[in-house]
Amino acid sequence: MFEVIFLPEGKRVTVPEGTTLMAAAIKGEVDIATICGGKSFCGKCLVEVIEGELSPITDVELKRIPPEKVKKGYRFACQAQVKGNVTIRVPDQSRVGRQRLVIMGKEPPIKIRSNVEKVYLEMDPPTLHDTVADDIRLYAALGSKGILNARLDYRTGTKITEMLRTANWKSTAVVLGGKEVIGIEAGDTRKRSFGVAVDIGTTKLAVFIVDLIDGGIAFADGMMNPQIRFGEDVISRINYAAQGERELGDVQKTIINGINELIEKGLAETGIDRRELYELVAVGNTAMHHLFVGVDTKSLGLSPYPAGLGRAYDIKARDMEIAINQSGNVHVLPNIAGFVGADAIADALACRLHEKEKLTLLMDVGTNTEVMLGSRDGIWSCSTASGPAFEGAHIKNGMRAASGAVEKVRIADDEVSCKTIDDDKARGICGSGIIDALAEMLKCGALDTSGKLVEGHKGVRVTPAGKEYVLVPKEETSSGKEDIVVSQDDVREIQKAKAAMFGGYMTLMRKSGHPTTDLNEIIIAGAFGNYIDPASARILGMIPEVPLDRISFTGNTAGSGARICLKSLDMRREATEVADKMKYIELAAEPVFMEEYINAMYMPNSRLNMFPETVETIKAPKVVRVYVSK
Amino acid sequence: MFEVIFLPEGKRVTVPEGTTLMAAAIKGEVDIATICGGKSFCGKCLVEVIEGELSPITDVELKRIPPEKVKKGYRFACQAQVKGNVTIRVPDQSRVGRQRLVIMGKEPPIKIRSNVEKVYLEMDPPTLHDTVADDIRLYAALGSKGILNARLDYRTGTKITEMLRTANWKSTAVVLGGKEVIGIEAGDTRKRSFGVAVDIGTTKLAVFIVDLIDGGIAFADGMMNPQIRFGEDVISRINYAAQGERELGDVQKTIINGINELIEKGLAETGIDRRELYELVAVGNTAMHHLFVGVDTKSLGLSPYPAGLGRAYDIKARDMEIAINQSGNVHVLPNIAGFVGADAIADALACRLHEKEKLTLLMDVGTNTEVMLGSRDGIWSCSTASGPAFEGAHIKNGMRAASGAVEKVRIADDEVSCKTIDDDKARGICGSGIIDALAEMLKCGALDTSGKLVEGHKGVRVTPAGKEYVLVPKEETSSGKEDIVVSQDDVREIQKAKAAMFGGYMTLMRKSGHPTTDLNEIIIAGAFGNYIDPASARILGMIPEVPLDRISFTGNTAGSGARICLKSLDMRREATEVADKMKYIELAAEPVFMEEYINAMYMPNSRLNMFPETVETIKAPKVVRVYVSK
Repeated sequence: MFEVIFLPEGKRVTVPEGTTLMAAAIKGEVDIATICGGKSFCGKCLVEVIEGELSPITDVELKRIPPEKVKKGYRFACQAQVKGNVTIRVPDQSRVGRQRLVIMGKEPPIKIRSNVEKVYLEMDPPTLHDTVADDIRLYAALGSKGILNARLDYRTGTKITEMLRTANWKSTAVVLGGKEVIGIEAGDTRKRSFGVAVDIGTTKLAVFIVDLIDGGIAFADGMMNPQIRFGEDVISRINYAAQGERELGDVQKTIINGINELIEKGLAETGIDRRELYELVAVGNTAMHHLFVGVDTKSLGLSPYPAGLGRAYDIKARDMEIAINQSGNVHVLPNIAGFVGADAIADALACRLHEKEKLTLLMDVGTNTEVMLGSRDGIWSCSTASGPAFEGAHIKNGMRAASGAVEKVRIADDEVSCKTIDDDKARGICGSGIIDALAEMLKCGALDTSGKLVEGHKGVRVTPAGKEYVLVPKEETSSGKEDIVVSQDDVREIQKAKAAMFGGYMTLMRKSGHPTTDLNEIIIAGAFGNYIDPASARILGMIPEVPLDRISFTGNTAGSGARICLKSLDMRREATEVADKMKYIELAAEPVFMEEYINAMYMPNSRLNMFPETVETIKAPKVVRVYVSK
Repeated sequence: MFEVIFLPEGKRVTVPEGTTLMAAAIKGEVDIATICGGKSFCGKCLVEVIEGELSPITDVELKRIPPEKVKKGYRFACQAQVKGNVTIRVPDQSRVGRQRLVIMGKEPPIKIRSNVEKVYLEMDPPTLHDTVADDIRLYAALGSKGILNARLDYRTGTKITEMLRTANWKSTAVVLGGKEVIGIEAGDTRKRSFGVAVDIGTTKLAVFIVDLIDGGIAFADGMMNPQIRFGEDVISRINYAAQGERELGDVQKTIINGINELIEKGLAETGIDRRELYELVAVGNTAMHHLFVGVDTKSLGLSPYPAGLGRAYDIKARDMEIAINQSGNVHVLPNIAGFVGADAIADALACRLHEKEKLTLLMDVGTNTEVMLGSRDGIWSCSTASGPAFEGAHIKNGMRAASGAVEKVRIADDEVSCKTIDDDKARGICGSGIIDALAEMLKCGALDTSGKLVEGHKGVRVTPAGKEYVLVPKEETSSGKEDIVVSQDDVREIQKAKAAMFGGYMTLMRKSGHPTTDLNEIIIAGAFGNYIDPASARILGMIPEVPLDRISFTGNTAGSGARICLKSLDMRREATEVADKMKYIELAAEPVFMEEYINAMYMPNSRLNMFPETVETIKAPKVVRVYVSK
């Protein structure tokens, strides 16, 4: 066994010989970024070796780490194995860190009809001539209030004798779903009732404590999904969990610990008692849902990607070690298939997609983008691998939406002006920034519609690594050492991402039989969407051309959907109805998707007639070639 | 911290200063007998101090331990506190030990209709064009077999993806109560289905593994109830558990460990897989039921002794850490009140008391005797503290039914002949032996009907401690040192015990409004009953005088009742019906009981006309005084 010390925090971890630094970091809960999940191709886990013996540097490291850094002893944490006691420094760039998390989303007004009912009961204590058992006495009292078929939850049942006597036979029964007594509280507590709504995003975790009496949000907070330790993308986490029951348990425990931590914080801030949290409603994409519930996810990672659990479920909080009332209920919304999961249902519910009179496109943009197209007449859905480019991965100067990220770009008369988050000196570009940048470059002619940087245009320069467009000169950056640029490869990444989204939309449109002109409205959900300029997104052809006033950004509606389902049983019923009605299209099985994907690689699209207004604003050379599958 | 070594087993236990030897023994699971639960009045926990320092001998020890033993260093384990490292020898007499346990009982024929349904399903695997979730696919397959509303249990749900694929989509679903899927097994396993029936007696624990297909008993075994470590009587255990949640947990864990141990043994002997045990049905008196389920029992120990849980309950096996299928179900039968618990319901069911055309008396004889009087027209019940005299406690030479216990006594021409268990040399008298002895002594005139030993009668001798009757002269005993006798005090103990039983019966009879002549049949249940001579019991007036051919001994029908409820949902329904219909009489609230108790102190009774046949057989002086309450 050897000791690994991580600087600057000074965390010490003891591991057997041969353990990778990444595994040691996971064990010690040291924050090291990884996107590829330890497959050495993302290059985000670069660490500096201060002293100690590690396995020899690998070919892949020699190829990917700049020679001057190799000389200084830099290694990839996922490659270097411990061979003795070592001291490691984790540079800031290799950390996931804190970032701007959008956890709020638009919530429709609903009538509260929660699953939690509180009934105040006054009972006569037993006497020698009335020795009726405590539970039967309780059921009789509940019966007199119209609750006829409730039964005590096991844990609550074991405490009944003490609870009724402590309360001096004046108590409030907490009844779940009209059928299960999950609490007996002293006195009249009918005014206090709380629940928890959770949105488990691949990247972020949002937790809300909701007042089930007035519907208000008592507490809201978010954190990075701590499962990021097992890989930034879903497939890395599925692969980690697929190694065995223990590993699956690790991944599950990690997210539950994260949720419990936020709940703990909420209780401390609000003075609510843990036992007053009677229910928790969770949503997430199918993989996040399964890893939260603890469902074996091997099959989710393999074609044809069916969900293990498709229906809504109620699970005892104590079975999952969720830190609410241990007799309480964890409700998970239904999943559809592939990545169209409970979060998509939540989005649809919160955005009332199933009530729209006219055809509406709802996209929840993330590493996987869920695309739903429909109205009250029916909903088609698919999931498309838009990739992490919008979150800054695979982008030369990409970064998440954190301080110093370029989030808005305007190019006027070939002069670039950038706005950064928190108005810090620029450190990189986040998703909304790169969308703006590309749209502006198209408009000014620095980029052609096929995605080629136009040589000779002001700002475009040629380097040995290829063409790039300078957004922020180095003297204006935080490091002061390197320009922040959009590279030709970056453009390709964004083209692929937006083509995936638009291809998904068009496939659904064609499946639905509607002409594209039927589309009336676009709703963009997801943490990322809030900061996108809709005009820029339209210019890129991420979304179809509808009037700007019919494009809305609703934020984290997955969280909103979780909250309304927590507050209303009617919403849960609707969730099941939406799930039952939603038609799922597996894009891998649709040749049409490839055709639409290729056409959507052009900006806005090779079918220029679909973007008549946009085309007017683009100065760039219009290089297009329409592809039609046989 | 000091070390206590228990000889001869050599068990070492480390405890803080001031710990009693009894507490150290409990911690080390060393078998030391206690009846009083550490209150120093039973004198069963005598141990020999080999070396080491203990707290000074107490007054109560000086009074109760013979001086020669005090000199040799004998102490009561419940009194002596550790003051240094000590070595203790636990003599055989101070151990609970192994003993004859009657675990079988009469079982009525029933139609099997178990709660466990196995359904063989062949499903189509998902394809890119059929991405229906695994659970919905399963529900559809179940629906095609007529099971429409089943839902996956949480733990089973987390394994569904793996289970269906391992089974290559040909699997057997295990459905509980038509509504919960608790297993998905590879292939067609419809022929294998098992459950566990458990009878938790105050003294003994019986476990049966039952084949739910053919109804056969695959395994049956018993052990002493390991809770005996917390006191032989129920009140001692309730008092121990009442100290706090941890102590209640200790007592619960102890009985569950005992059950799990027997299950383990059964699995090893039968080759059944633990996951094939889908259900467990448990019965016990109210206190045993509550301590098993983990219900706070403080109120059970206090007048008016109401049960905490009166209804039947279904509890997840994993919630109770019962070692059957973790998704399986633990079903506990309903309780009535006081000590009339799930075991009494089980007795009534197994003996079909609720179907009798004529008035029948059913008594389950134990430390507490449950008395039920009734027919298909209704059942009255009560519980009476018959005490542990029939189990050998409070009897000078009393012992449990183990090798060497006198179990049959005949006195002919004033010559005593005794039969011992296993025909060993006599070590003491067990319950059936003492009943026989008193009946024979009455018949031969050595005892009068008021319970006085008749001075001058052959075999009756006067000692400084009082009169006694010699059953086995010392030269015929195993020790060879002391005669085995029935003392005047022993007679009193038996009088009190049988008066309690008969008083209970008469109270019910009077409450029911029936004349005593309506009684048609007597059923004696309980481990102890099997060996009683009904004629002797009748002579003593333990039971009323009905023809001997209408007196039956059914053994452990509590266990039988558990088995039939395991095998049949109809029986569970009947159990609830019986519980709902059974009228409970709390004897503490009935002045009539005291009157009947006093009259029943006479043998057979002060109302001699109630025992016309018996009276004919008694040579003893008929000393009676009828007591009538005002």
